[in-house]
Amino acid sequence: MDIVTLRDLFEEQIRDLHSGEKQIIDALPEMIEATTDSELQNALRNHLEETREQLERLEKVGKMLDFRVKGETCDGMKGIIKEGNKLVTKDVEEDEVRDAAIVAALQRVEHYEIAVYGTVTTFARMLGEDQVLKLLQTSLDEEKEADATLTRIAEAHVNRRAMASGD
Amino acid sequence: MDIVTLRDLFEEQIRDLHSGEKQIIDALPEMIEATTDSELQNALRNHLEETREQLERLEKVGKMLDFRVKGETCDGMKGIIKEGNKLVTKDVEEDEVRDAAIVAALQRVEHYEIAVYGTVTTFARMLGEDQVLKLLQTSLDEEKEADATLTRIAEAHVNRRAMASGD
Repeated sequence: MDIVTLRDLFEEQIRDLHSGEKQIIDALPEMIEATTDSELQNALRNHLEETREQLERLEKVGKMLDFRVKGETCDGMKGIIKEGNKLVTKDVEEDEVRDAAIVAALQRVEHYEIAVYGTVTTFARMLGEDQVLKLLQTSLDEEKEADATLTRIAEAHVNRRAMASGD
Repeated sequence: MDIVTLRDLFEEQIRDLHSGEKQIIDALPEMIEATTDSELQNALRNHLEETREQLERLEKVGKMLDFRVKGETCDGMKGIIKEGNKLVTKDVEEDEVRDAAIVAALQRVEHYEIAVYGTVTTFARMLGEDQVLKLLQTSLDEEKEADATLTRIAEAHVNRRAMASGD
């Protein structure tokens, strides 16, 4: 693909995000299944719903600015999910430690998304696309909130339970 | 690998980080070469030096806690770098837009690392490894600072130059 203008780069980043969100929607159910902490499980279920809405927002952005959002593969997210899946489903043998591993894997996902939504909100602002900016800012705020929720749950009990087990 | 305790998970995350830092050290020179903005280029040179020190800190952690930090491949970082390289060296055709793409690609790297250093500092604190915690906290602070520097440079001129070019 030929990227010549900042708008081209913006569209490429949106396509990349679209692929990333789709990969998360595909990967989360297995993570939810693997979780034994009920608060963590509920938080992940909520985030799966949120991610579906984030995907729809990106499709809306494509319609508003008249470009195709589908058809790209986000290699970054592919690697992050591959690694998280291996850790959670193969490497970890204790339930309580697995919950801590799930939090760790998903915080990588969240931070990665925070970076990309940070980039596209900046570009949307520069391009003067205020309505698009509003949609992307909503998703960025949700990702930050999802990351903070994971930290809160980990600190509240997941990490302590992991510490107490297996020793 | 069998992960049974939180300490096992901590060691696995450190090995993953070690692989990630090594991959960044290998990838940054090409990014520096591709940059046309001198302030961005200087910032990346500084960060390459910093990354070498972060790698050494991880090796120190391995020595202090008596475990091997080498021998793992961080698939997440591998995907992020693959994607960034493709974007910067193949897809983007305009110098000024490429600088904006480099910032975008590296902020994905930084945020990903912020997530992992966040996890390992939390684990080090729980495990009561205060000296190790101090080393990891130094690297975490540096990553946050590197991300903030990229934002500052992008907002100061890289993005504006990208906006003005190619249209």
